[in-house]
Amino acid sequence: MIKKITIVGGTHGNELIGPNLIRKLEQNGSFEQSTIPVDYLLANIEAHKAVRRFMDSDLNRSFTDEILDGDDDSIYEHRRAREINQLLGPKTNNDRFIIDLHSTTSNMGMTLIIKEQAAFNLQAASYVQQHMPNVKIILSDRDNQLSRTLNSLSDYAVTVEVGPLPNGVLRHDQFADTESVIRHLVDFAQMSVNERSRILPTTTEVYTVTDRVFYPRNDDGQLSAMVHSSLQDSDFEELKPGMPVFQNMDGTVTPYQGEAGYPIFINEAAYYYENTAFMMTRRTTVVPGS
Amino acid sequence: MIKKITIVGGTHGNELIGPNLIRKLEQNGSFEQSTIPVDYLLANIEAHKAVRRFMDSDLNRSFTDEILDGDDDSIYEHRRAREINQLLGPKTNNDRFIIDLHSTTSNMGMTLIIKEQAAFNLQAASYVQQHMPNVKIILSDRDNQLSRTLNSLSDYAVTVEVGPLPNGVLRHDQFADTESVIRHLVDFAQMSVNERSRILPTTTEVYTVTDRVFYPRNDDGQLSAMVHSSLQDSDFEELKPGMPVFQNMDGTVTPYQGEAGYPIFINEAAYYYENTAFMMTRRTTVVPGS
Repeated sequence: MIKKITIVGGTHGNELIGPNLIRKLEQNGSFEQSTIPVDYLLANIEAHKAVRRFMDSDLNRSFTDEILDGDDDSIYEHRRAREINQLLGPKTNNDRFIIDLHSTTSNMGMTLIIKEQAAFNLQAASYVQQHMPNVKIILSDRDNQLSRTLNSLSDYAVTVEVGPLPNGVLRHDQFADTESVIRHLVDFAQMSVNERSRILPTTTEVYTVTDRVFYPRNDDGQLSAMVHSSLQDSDFEELKPGMPVFQNMDGTVTPYQGEAGYPIFINEAAYYYENTAFMMTRRTTVVPGS
Repeated sequence: MIKKITIVGGTHGNELIGPNLIRKLEQNGSFEQSTIPVDYLLANIEAHKAVRRFMDSDLNRSFTDEILDGDDDSIYEHRRAREINQLLGPKTNNDRFIIDLHSTTSNMGMTLIIKEQAAFNLQAASYVQQHMPNVKIILSDRDNQLSRTLNSLSDYAVTVEVGPLPNGVLRHDQFADTESVIRHLVDFAQMSVNERSRILPTTTEVYTVTDRVFYPRNDDGQLSAMVHSSLQDSDFEELKPGMPVFQNMDGTVTPYQGEAGYPIFINEAAYYYENTAFMMTRRTTVVPGS
């Protein structure tokens, strides 16, 4: 079913691990012996040169049918999304495993974001977790046809998020961890179905997004609070009602008022634009072998 | 001698602590009782809006005589430097204490960068260090007339650097520490000379920059190495010859070959443009009261 593997870097141009890692893997001929051909894609070429998240619009929000079928050439990322759709897609052509490399300023460690369309994704992520026990798995139920992300170009896709990493910076430790994740994913993709079922764990913990929590702002649109120091860096640690979430500029503290759960993407730089302070998830146990 | 105090935020538009902190201090009327008037300046207004370090050129490299005396209007930061020179300068008019708020992606903790032109700067920094023992002091001998930075507009100036902080992000803990530094600096500026000499320590440790270490690059200009994981986050820890500094993409490790010293600004995002992996300093003991 999976005939090709594509490792994607630079979907966001200021996240440096992906572009430098695919360059290294390609130069060193790392996967030339793979039974499934592996190729590489530098996704947002212009934003990577400029060390910016994007030039005109977020590439990872540009893979909608409207944009892919459109012909407006004024936005660089929309042109580039159509090019990438030609290279890796179309969305209905599910013969490619896409590994999209990202980083986050949040303290999320190594996180794999997968789609539940294909059991393969959860199995592959569980296999990585067997070898790297600190890896977290986030399960997304977004339908490819409704999704705007690059990895909506195939049912078989894993998004790798590593943090905390400032934008515009390479870290050796996280670079090496990301390389290990890729090796395990490629190894798993090459296994037979029998081999997979023999080694997979019976259950795996996954997180699913339930909510977003937004920054408070003044009437003039300025931030009137920041993430409280006790929540900062506490990704994947349980947040319960009454615990501090915001330190307000007027000196008061805002407690959490939603349902208990596990926050992620706490204080991610890119989410200031979307006014998101963090997302909430619930944790469940699933069976990757089913 | 010091008739005014100006607290500057947003000299680099993607460093968020300064702009948000001066907005908070102004809104809360924090220094309205100060015997020396305190005012605030958002330095790079356009870059702060765009959450970029700069629009056309680095504002903190734009305070040269050539630019300040020039009339080329094509570069936003050069126009803005001339405006700020009108507001805070000119360079020869030393009646203002400038506190310029920055952040760094390096693990430098709280660092004050001061100029040795005025004994006041070292005394003020030592006073802060008495109250916040983890604060480090970097002494710069750059002559105002040769300096390109905003704080070259007065002999009385302290640059506050706090890290590690990703660009485009606010952290509560570092925000609060920066506010404490400002309060101590303003307190000290208001003291009489007698009062100062009574409380100052007899000696203080300072770091002075001796060298820069550059990233290795391929023939095509791409990074061929990253800061080694054992050097990462080791700002102000002694680096000796033979210790690893770079992890090369070909798998080899480059050891340090210079003189022993104390690295700073290790893996700072903004210094990739200048190809600087880190700077080296030597540590000396000086007498702040002299």
